[in-house]
Amino acid sequence: MLKPGEIALGFDPANTPDAGIVFIGHMETPWSKGHCPKNPREARERGGTFIAWIAEPYRAGLIGLEAGMTVILLYWMGRAARDVLVQTPASKPAPTGVFALRSPARPNPVALAITQIRAIDAKAGRIEVDASDAFNGTPLVDIKPWLPKIDTLHDGE
Amino acid sequence: MLKPGEIALGFDPANTPDAGIVFIGHMETPWSKGHCPKNPREARERGGTFIAWIAEPYRAGLIGLEAGMTVILLYWMGRAARDVLVQTPASKPAPTGVFALRSPARPNPVALAITQIRAIDAKAGRIEVDASDAFNGTPLVDIKPWLPKIDTLHDGE
Repeated sequence: MLKPGEIALGFDPANTPDAGIVFIGHMETPWSKGHCPKNPREARERGGTFIAWIAEPYRAGLIGLEAGMTVILLYWMGRAARDVLVQTPASKPAPTGVFALRSPARPNPVALAITQIRAIDAKAGRIEVDASDAFNGTPLVDIKPWLPKIDTLHDGE
Repeated sequence: MLKPGEIALGFDPANTPDAGIVFIGHMETPWSKGHCPKNPREARERGGTFIAWIAEPYRAGLIGLEAGMTVILLYWMGRAARDVLVQTPASKPAPTGVFALRSPARPNPVALAITQIRAIDAKAGRIEVDASDAFNGTPLVDIKPWLPKIDTLHDGE
């Protein structure tokens, strides 16, 4: 399955977990395999309706989130292989390590996207956001407020 | 254990995992419980030596990372409770949902920090970064390149 230049781990990280993740909900998006945008920015440009659905037990945790806020979504891109450490994406001139790439194929497939809340109904667990590059149905792992003073190296850089 | 105004899940997410995380290494920092900075920005201001150590099996994945690059570190703040959905931090006037907070106490304690690589020795699995607010020994989950065109809502915002 490896392409020339690729290097794999000798094991599948899915089989040797050190800790467990729970799915707190899932993404509803227009995207499926084959016509998915490359990143949240491309998703924003192509447009559509993007909903983060939060499962009932976790909805109390939404208190304080409001339309207009910028949030970080963490989601689980669990369909890709987790053992390919060096990859050969078309965008790179040479084989590149997974930790220098945003590929969904990585030891821990936790992806992140910076998005803006368009509307929120906390009771229904429905958060409409301005963009997502995730497949429809992608499990959600976390939502965090995006804080420019913390989440940039220097304010606004 | 709950303070007035706090709300907990009825279960511990650690006991009902939907997926598994592997630790790819750990952070070496000056911080331990009781005198830890609040966030990576405060850590940067206080200064010190901050090393991300990558375990041997994962080091091939570092190809392409270089000093000067800005990266996102994901790490596992697994010491805190995972079931407190509404919290009462001193910084907030009212009880606030965990998804509107950066508290380490959250259903999935995956924290993130935007940092700059100061030096890297990929063979040794040693990456010196400019700051980290993590306790010494905190497990690492992922490293991703920080891409301003993707990781801000609008370039530079």
